[in-house]
Amino acid sequence: MAIQKKLSLMIPGPTPVPERVLQALGSHPIGHRSKDFQNIVSSTSENLKWLHQTQNDVLTITGSGTAAMEAGIINTLSKGDTVICGENGKFGERWVKVANSFGLKVITIKAEWGKPLNPNDFKEILEKDHKKEIKAVILTHSETSTGVINDLEKISSYIQNHNHALSIVDCVTSIGACNVATDDWKLDIVASGSQKGYMIPPGLSFVSVSDKAWKACETSDLPKFYLDLKSYKKSLLSDSNPFTPAVNLFFALDEALKMMREEGLQNIFARHERHKRAISYAMQALDLKLFAKDNHLSPSVTAIETKSFDAELFRKLIKEKYDILLAGGQDHLKGKIFRIGHLGYINDKDIISVISAVGLTLIEESNLSNDSLGKALKKAKACLMQ
Amino acid sequence: MAIQKKLSLMIPGPTPVPERVLQALGSHPIGHRSKDFQNIVSSTSENLKWLHQTQNDVLTITGSGTAAMEAGIINTLSKGDTVICGENGKFGERWVKVANSFGLKVITIKAEWGKPLNPNDFKEILEKDHKKEIKAVILTHSETSTGVINDLEKISSYIQNHNHALSIVDCVTSIGACNVATDDWKLDIVASGSQKGYMIPPGLSFVSVSDKAWKACETSDLPKFYLDLKSYKKSLLSDSNPFTPAVNLFFALDEALKMMREEGLQNIFARHERHKRAISYAMQALDLKLFAKDNHLSPSVTAIETKSFDAELFRKLIKEKYDILLAGGQDHLKGKIFRIGHLGYINDKDIISVISAVGLTLIEESNLSNDSLGKALKKAKACLMQ
Repeated sequence: MAIQKKLSLMIPGPTPVPERVLQALGSHPIGHRSKDFQNIVSSTSENLKWLHQTQNDVLTITGSGTAAMEAGIINTLSKGDTVICGENGKFGERWVKVANSFGLKVITIKAEWGKPLNPNDFKEILEKDHKKEIKAVILTHSETSTGVINDLEKISSYIQNHNHALSIVDCVTSIGACNVATDDWKLDIVASGSQKGYMIPPGLSFVSVSDKAWKACETSDLPKFYLDLKSYKKSLLSDSNPFTPAVNLFFALDEALKMMREEGLQNIFARHERHKRAISYAMQALDLKLFAKDNHLSPSVTAIETKSFDAELFRKLIKEKYDILLAGGQDHLKGKIFRIGHLGYINDKDIISVISAVGLTLIEESNLSNDSLGKALKKAKACLMQ
Repeated sequence: MAIQKKLSLMIPGPTPVPERVLQALGSHPIGHRSKDFQNIVSSTSENLKWLHQTQNDVLTITGSGTAAMEAGIINTLSKGDTVICGENGKFGERWVKVANSFGLKVITIKAEWGKPLNPNDFKEILEKDHKKEIKAVILTHSETSTGVINDLEKISSYIQNHNHALSIVDCVTSIGACNVATDDWKLDIVASGSQKGYMIPPGLSFVSVSDKAWKACETSDLPKFYLDLKSYKKSLLSDSNPFTPAVNLFFALDEALKMMREEGLQNIFARHERHKRAISYAMQALDLKLFAKDNHLSPSVTAIETKSFDAELFRKLIKEKYDILLAGGQDHLKGKIFRIGHLGYINDKDIISVISAVGLTLIEESNLSNDSLGKALKKAKACLMQ
């Protein structure tokens, strides 16, 4: 049991939670229709806008990131609408499934898992759509399953040129890790989840909704009730929620957003960039191959190929010996990659300890040289000092 | 701020949370795909079945009680299906709205707010339905908005006689407070929420699903993804969840269910019964009128009429002077009733303190005699000692 209590989460969610936030989480609940709770909703709403770099409404749903993405899709679209879905990983796949479940016509733009989506693929299809039949472009910014970041800014610019389709973007592992300039990039729906860059446990999810998206909500005919964003918007006018929200997770959210403001958005992004670089250089110094290319690495999670050994066994050893939980590969990648989450409340110590744990395990299991581990740590240090 | 930290919640949710449960809640999260978390899901699933008195699957959704009810409705029914909705309060009204949102044909059986639904109304309509067009009967067991309990056992027996319609029941403030005999009463869908009898904060909701309801799921054509119960069932086979669940609320749930098993189901019901009786007798001894009749009182919440004074002002005084949060009336009852929640982690001290606070405020504001307060407390004591 002692081991469990000092587990380091280095998976792409749930991410580690600061003590300040855990203490807030573990407080006695208050009434969700009270003035005290309205004050919390008011504070979190303002800070969510700051985090999203937007003047749009940012709504909070008690549910997972999938609930937030589904809400974005079913509130703005109607049965039979044509949408583009970008698919280069498990989450891209999921949004295709959601779109199909609700009777949308899906044009899929694919890239191999581990590769980024090609923005030109979007450009071409959107430019050919003279009849403006494409109602939305649904894609994932940071593909958690493969550690790839897609070029959202560029793809969004093509959506702007189309001048009709909405952008509905899964920013679950990019918000709070790298730049997501909602207003500058004119993103219509941005969905995210609490157990990621937000540094709080899972259970809340977030949807920012542009004016253009609200207009689309007026004509959307897909049935909904719990995920009807109009009721969240209406409640937010009085700093409230349409349904009983996860009150204690709001306490945690409030505290975590305050911590994020104390650190500052640019500092948060820079920290994630340093950690990403440290991990990627160090892994290569350990003779491991990154699953994604250098210039498309997610700021939150790095996937590493394990051709010569079983990734699941490797993860198990790291957990048992060092109390560090890594993520495995999903679906066909199970056993073939492991993923290091470096998202949220992660410091330099976490980075050097995970590199050390990976290196020590390789020394024991794969005859890696001591020298390689020393070099890997030195490379990491150089990145961390930048 | 000191006041907030010793607030007593005597509203019908969120309810007070035991320290053991808060400590579990405030623990560092773990991975939701880990063996450690599977153990928790396995434990909570078993204990949820115990609490629901059922062999049916009991699924846990990250969301509010409304999400659980909506899941029950949209997974078992198809567009255009005819349903009966019982409506004698705000939650009954809500299920009519949900049913309408999803294109169901709704036959509404109403009772005045504060009165119970008449089981014979259900019997008559169901008996006349020779073509078996009625696919489901949707109703609320304990109507939180008015403090009325409906005779679910009897209504369910009429649904059984119909031999076709499913029962879809909101047991949000009855589960863990009074007898909800899921299997004995042959309830098909039972929905509930964590911030009630479960003694944990809001954020999780529960749906028990009978075999008959699972059969109906196979033909249901209403679109869903996040609330698709089939994916929850599939995941539960491996003690898992289809989407990232509220991990820390699962910690809390696990601890709270263990506490409930330690107390025992019959003891829990008896405690709620004693508290309900103590409150109802005492309020009448304070010259207040109960909003619901004696034989239809909810085990979880008592609504009290305030003809001679403003209920909202009264609640405010009680909160400011005694740090006890009471609930107000909803919609047209705002200002006209207040509600005392006595659901979940409530002990005798809570009961005598709320009676004292109400009495003292009446002495100050409405010239109640000291003697009446003494009598009210004595009446309460007699109930508590039974």
